[in-house]
Amino acid sequence: MFTLYHHPFSPSSRFVRLMLREYGADYQERCFDPWERPGELLQLNPAGTVPILVENEGPAICGPMPIMEYLDETRGYAVADRRLMPDHPDARAECRRLVDWSLCKFDTEVVGHLVRERIYKQTMPKSAGGGAPDSAALRVARANIHHHLRYFSYLVASRRWIAGDRLSFADLALGAALSCADYLGEVPWANEENVKNWYARVKSRPSMRPLLSEKILGMPASVTYADLDF
Amino acid sequence: MFTLYHHPFSPSSRFVRLMLREYGADYQERCFDPWERPGELLQLNPAGTVPILVENEGPAICGPMPIMEYLDETRGYAVADRRLMPDHPDARAECRRLVDWSLCKFDTEVVGHLVRERIYKQTMPKSAGGGAPDSAALRVARANIHHHLRYFSYLVASRRWIAGDRLSFADLALGAALSCADYLGEVPWANEENVKNWYARVKSRPSMRPLLSEKILGMPASVTYADLDF
Repeated sequence: MFTLYHHPFSPSSRFVRLMLREYGADYQERCFDPWERPGELLQLNPAGTVPILVENEGPAICGPMPIMEYLDETRGYAVADRRLMPDHPDARAECRRLVDWSLCKFDTEVVGHLVRERIYKQTMPKSAGGGAPDSAALRVARANIHHHLRYFSYLVASRRWIAGDRLSFADLALGAALSCADYLGEVPWANEENVKNWYARVKSRPSMRPLLSEKILGMPASVTYADLDF
Repeated sequence: MFTLYHHPFSPSSRFVRLMLREYGADYQERCFDPWERPGELLQLNPAGTVPILVENEGPAICGPMPIMEYLDETRGYAVADRRLMPDHPDARAECRRLVDWSLCKFDTEVVGHLVRERIYKQTMPKSAGGGAPDSAALRVARANIHHHLRYFSYLVASRRWIAGDRLSFADLALGAALSCADYLGEVPWANEENVKNWYARVKSRPSMRPLLSEKILGMPASVTYADLDF
C-alpha cells in the first residue's frame, strides 16, 4: 500500500496519481498545501515539495521523476504490455525528455504561473504571498502557451502518442499539466486540433476520472474540463 | 563514439562529462553558449538547452537526467562494480532525488545565479542580457548557499558518499555544481568540514581533472579550485 502526499492541483502530483492508477497500485492520499511546508512534509522531503510517495513503511520517494522510475522498476514488468516506459533506451530517453518538458519547462513558462496565480494565491495567507493574481505573470503564461501547444501539435502530428506509438509516461505528464490549465479554461483548444484529439484520448482513460471530478471551492471548472467530447 | 554538446561552466554539462569519463566512454565535444540558441542546437533539442548527447548517428539524448539514465542503461552493467546507479530501487530513488537537488534546486537557488551573473553575463551581448552582474541575485545566492551546504554536511556526516555508502551519480552531480561555484571562490569551505572532506574525495577522481584545468579568459580560478588539498 502506497501513501501519496500531494496537492490536487499540482501537475506533478496529478502525474503521480495517473501513474498509480494506470499501474493498478492501491494508495491512500494525504493533501498538503505546497506553500505551507509543515514539519511532517519537511521530514519526508527536505525540499518541502510534493509529490512524495511512501510504500508501506519504506523511505520517502521524492519528486515526480524519481517516483516514475521507482514505479516502473517495481511494477513495470508486472503490467506487461501496459508498461508506460518504452523498451528501447533511445525511446526511453525521448519519453523522459518529454516528461521533463511537461513538468519543468512547461510548468516554469506556463502552467506554474496559472496555478500559482489563479489557484494557490486564492487560498494562501497574505503573509505567504496570497492575494490577487499578478496580471503580468498571467500575461506571460498566456503568451507562452501558444508556443508550447504548437510544439505538442507538431509531435502528435507524426506520432500516435506524444513520445511515440504507444502510450507512455510522457502522455500522463503532459495530460496532468494540461488538465490544470484546462480546469482554469486557459487552453486555447480552438486552434490546436491535433493536440485536442490527443488530449481527448488521454482524458477518456479511466485513470483520469478522479481528476476530472475534482473541484475548487468557489471556482467552477471550465466547460471543457470534464467533457470527454469537448 | 559520443558527441557532447555542452558549455564548460554549465553544471549539468559538467555532470555529463564526469559520467562519460567515469564510464570510460569516448566522446568529442562541441561547445555552445546556452543563451545563443543557434539553429543547430534547436534542431537537436527544441528546448534550446545543453547538455545534449548523441551516440554515433543516433537521436539526441537531451538533458542531464535522461542522459544519466541512458548511460546507465547502455553502459552500467559493463562497468560492473564501478556502476554509478545503486542496485536497490529505494537507493536509486535517493540517488535520483539528490541529482535533482544538485542540478535543479541548488541551481535555481544558488549556482545558476552565480554562473549567470559572474560568467555568462561577461560574454553575453548586451541585447541578450549581458553586462554587469545583478548584485541582488548574487546576494540571494550567497545567502542560500549556507543552507544547502548545511544540508549536504548533514548527509555526508552519516554516509560515506552523498547518496549512500558507494560513489553514485549524485556525487558527480553535486561535485559538478559545486565546482562551478568553487571556480568563482563562492563556496565558504571554512565552516563546512564534512562537505569539504567529501568534495576533496570527489575532486581527486581522475574524471575531475579536465574540469579543474578549465579557465575563463580574464577570470582566474579561485585559489582552492584546482588544489586537491584545499
